[in-house]
Amino acid sequence: MIKALIFDVFGTVVDWRTGVANEAKAVFAEHSIHADPVDFAVAWRAQYAPSMQVIRSQSRSYVDLDVLHRENLEATLAEFELTGALDNAALTRFNRAWEKLPAWPDSTEGLTRLKSRFAIATCSNGSIALMTWLAKYANLPWDAILGAPVARNYKPEPEVYTASVSALGLNPEEVMMVAAHNGDLAAARKCGLKTAFFARPTEHGPGQTTDLEPAENWDYVATDLGDLADRLLK
Amino acid sequence: MIKALIFDVFGTVVDWRTGVANEAKAVFAEHSIHADPVDFAVAWRAQYAPSMQVIRSQSRSYVDLDVLHRENLEATLAEFELTGALDNAALTRFNRAWEKLPAWPDSTEGLTRLKSRFAIATCSNGSIALMTWLAKYANLPWDAILGAPVARNYKPEPEVYTASVSALGLNPEEVMMVAAHNGDLAAARKCGLKTAFFARPTEHGPGQTTDLEPAENWDYVATDLGDLADRLLK
Repeated sequence: MIKALIFDVFGTVVDWRTGVANEAKAVFAEHSIHADPVDFAVAWRAQYAPSMQVIRSQSRSYVDLDVLHRENLEATLAEFELTGALDNAALTRFNRAWEKLPAWPDSTEGLTRLKSRFAIATCSNGSIALMTWLAKYANLPWDAILGAPVARNYKPEPEVYTASVSALGLNPEEVMMVAAHNGDLAAARKCGLKTAFFARPTEHGPGQTTDLEPAENWDYVATDLGDLADRLLK
Repeated sequence: MIKALIFDVFGTVVDWRTGVANEAKAVFAEHSIHADPVDFAVAWRAQYAPSMQVIRSQSRSYVDLDVLHRENLEATLAEFELTGALDNAALTRFNRAWEKLPAWPDSTEGLTRLKSRFAIATCSNGSIALMTWLAKYANLPWDAILGAPVARNYKPEPEVYTASVSALGLNPEEVMMVAAHNGDLAAARKCGLKTAFFARPTEHGPGQTTDLEPAENWDYVATDLGDLADRLLK
């Protein structure tokens, strides 16, 4: 019997590409920078996985995602030949773009409905601060912030899923991981969690080729978060 | 400018004495135990502070409050000459009494109103599990669960307040500690947080003599959580 649902957030619940591009557009306009905001958002996000890998491989102690995002922001600005274009205060503000991401249209209502039956929590790589302020911005009614900051490691390391389950005082089979990413679900399943998938076919823009279909026989396959709520609450 | 409010929970937001006594009454009836449920609740709670002190003094590594509650439950049963009266499953269920505490009548509405302007989080000694399930039971709309589980230490150790502030990415003066306990506020103030007090004059029952009045010039002194919301939102 499932008692809690834990969610991937970036891509699954919120549209990071649009949100970061919108913030980049505003920052670039303010500083008379000529660069494509969507390209910038994609380049910034491209550094996400390698920056966490250094921690997952234990070459570096855990630092939270806000620290990685800031380092990746400066590296991305260098890539765009924009080093020095933003002062420290502007960089600090720009880094909070990740707290201002729009929810997908079905997310808030779907989560609100699921919250009436289950505990709902994040199992994201985001920090407590990032997840808390993002939830307030995007109106996401989480019961708890779990994931990386609880485990002090990054998905898909198994301890991130197991620490999130333990933090709720539950057993793995009582918790379902919800994600639009097959890799995230595969890692959760290896830890004994239940799994639910729906695609977010424009997370990476109109030409997306990945995660359009379930790659395994996940416990639930839905069309979106609203549809998942329909199935779980029926 | 205050951006977040962090709350003591047991006593300040919920009525632990009534909640634990109600659960004790049910357990005692089911097992034909003749003991006073309110006396039992008070005796169980009396072991709370000394059990944490062993951890605060670093004589013992951090374990979460559910573990301490369970140990204290068995000690309290011994004190009432009830050792062996409950099997392991019954003890496990009884220990979850702390997740079934009624909110004071003004708590849910006051928190809901405050949530529209501020981040609201727990800064309790309770575990993430305890705080999450209690919030679902008592309808407490927290944005985040902070406090002891984030710091891996117990209030009033300063790191519990400072770790809670840091977890939100804020500075101490941007965060206000809200408590019905002067000692909790004094510890938070020493860490640079703002402070808000209201009394819960029946937390300890009809004869309560402690924390009936503010002991220092706290930043806000209200009559209850609803009144605090009135003052902060005006």
